[in-house]
Amino acid sequence: VIRTGTRAAKTSAGYDLTGLLVGSEGTLAVITELTVRLHAIPEHAVALRIAFPDVESACRTAAGAVAAGAGVTRLELMDAFIVSAVNAYSGTSYPEGPCLLVESTGSEGVVADDLELVQAIAQAEGATDIVYERSPDARARLWQARHDAAHATAAMVPGTKERATDVCVPLTEVAAAARFARTEIERLGLSAGILGHAGDGNLHIAMQVAADEMERSEELVHNVVGDALARGGTCSGEHGIGVGKIGALAQEHGDLIPLMQAIKASFDPNGIMNPGKVLPPAASNRPL
Amino acid sequence: VIRTGTRAAKTSAGYDLTGLLVGSEGTLAVITELTVRLHAIPEHAVALRIAFPDVESACRTAAGAVAAGAGVTRLELMDAFIVSAVNAYSGTSYPEGPCLLVESTGSEGVVADDLELVQAIAQAEGATDIVYERSPDARARLWQARHDAAHATAAMVPGTKERATDVCVPLTEVAAAARFARTEIERLGLSAGILGHAGDGNLHIAMQVAADEMERSEELVHNVVGDALARGGTCSGEHGIGVGKIGALAQEHGDLIPLMQAIKASFDPNGIMNPGKVLPPAASNRPL
Repeated sequence: VIRTGTRAAKTSAGYDLTGLLVGSEGTLAVITELTVRLHAIPEHAVALRIAFPDVESACRTAAGAVAAGAGVTRLELMDAFIVSAVNAYSGTSYPEGPCLLVESTGSEGVVADDLELVQAIAQAEGATDIVYERSPDARARLWQARHDAAHATAAMVPGTKERATDVCVPLTEVAAAARFARTEIERLGLSAGILGHAGDGNLHIAMQVAADEMERSEELVHNVVGDALARGGTCSGEHGIGVGKIGALAQEHGDLIPLMQAIKASFDPNGIMNPGKVLPPAASNRPL
Repeated sequence: VIRTGTRAAKTSAGYDLTGLLVGSEGTLAVITELTVRLHAIPEHAVALRIAFPDVESACRTAAGAVAAGAGVTRLELMDAFIVSAVNAYSGTSYPEGPCLLVESTGSEGVVADDLELVQAIAQAEGATDIVYERSPDARARLWQARHDAAHATAAMVPGTKERATDVCVPLTEVAAAARFARTEIERLGLSAGILGHAGDGNLHIAMQVAADEMERSEELVHNVVGDALARGGTCSGEHGIGVGKIGALAQEHGDLIPLMQAIKASFDPNGIMNPGKVLPPAASNRPL
């Protein structure tokens, strides 16, 4: 049993083993206890729901808001497929096209300034509808609907299996990456929606895959990953590698695999920690 | 030559080798190229200079401002010793007692709200002087003076050698940690000032050490580190381990040293990367 980190906000005491363990998907250690930092609940929060004519203008608005320094705390994208699924599942009646969900928190002045800036950028990008959700109820309904998006898409196409993937690209590339994903979804004839944390450049694709569509869904993931890497991005922003993206990790960071394997061998010399995940089999268990 | 990271804002592609290399003090690899993210220059910035009757009330104000969610971008502490040195070196005439230097950036409303909150907390803590530095010139002078603090203290006591140390503690402990450091400085009869990034709980001690004071300065560092660890903090917030804090690292993270040594052996099997720094000699170079 080891303990990494301290209660201080930062440290430069030795190598950052906390950061190494976070995201290691159980392949280095089992985390049995963790301490999280709490932040004050903001005194004021307002959400904006903005409809756009296409996914690209929504993405450009998100990227523009971040570049302009708008201090928004949520900046979420849903495309038409996802909004339709959400409406059907959650009983909402949001306009069934691409949208951004934005939230700003803080003092009243901070929130007003932030959202005014986002609104101006959205209008310049041709936003078709801008709705302020000010009441706690309306905000709670909005974020619940967003949180339920995965369940909503799963319920949308009966007889299919849910499959999800995510990539993350530089903010300047997020509109083009979303367009590429949408074009590929249509070319492959798949039922899939794009959502994600647009302010991070993090795109998720939620697919509903029928038995005869498994290969095409694999092709979609492969092509979307290849596109993200070509744009200077990463094969996963949040979901990780698991089994399905071991090849993608090698494609992205082939030069790092031997070092990762050596670290794995140091922490887990017997290969008992979530074996077969994240890394391809090592040629040997010895360090480089 | 390896390349870690991507241009995306986040990634979950394998182990975080970028985080592992940052702060490894040249013991794992030599960084030959790095890419940094740029942020927009804020449209508006105002600095506050607040004088306090003692270091503790300054620290409590910093901790209170962070806990209350004030989004300030700088929150710096200088004690009376440092302010005197700064005045002598930079030709400023700031009141020669403990002070906080605070800066907020963003839209005009954001900045006004943030600083009003900090001011209210400072007043409740008995602040004796609160000065807004609004003009770019006055702000530049203030931050230049703060940046020159190390040179200023070095120039203060002729015939001495400069020695610096830093610790980082939880925000709730920063006032007590500063009081402990000040008491120890006086008990040991040393010429030293306390400054630091109070909003992070990160305290720096700048000592001017005469030839016959080396042992006492060592005792000060040892005791301040022990105090920080007892408060749930870390032996270094920023400066790192080098040679001087190898013992402190073992005191803080003794259970992690074998893992750090194994990682070191994986990256640097021949022990040629900044040898003798950060880690005590390994019993063997083989992984655990």
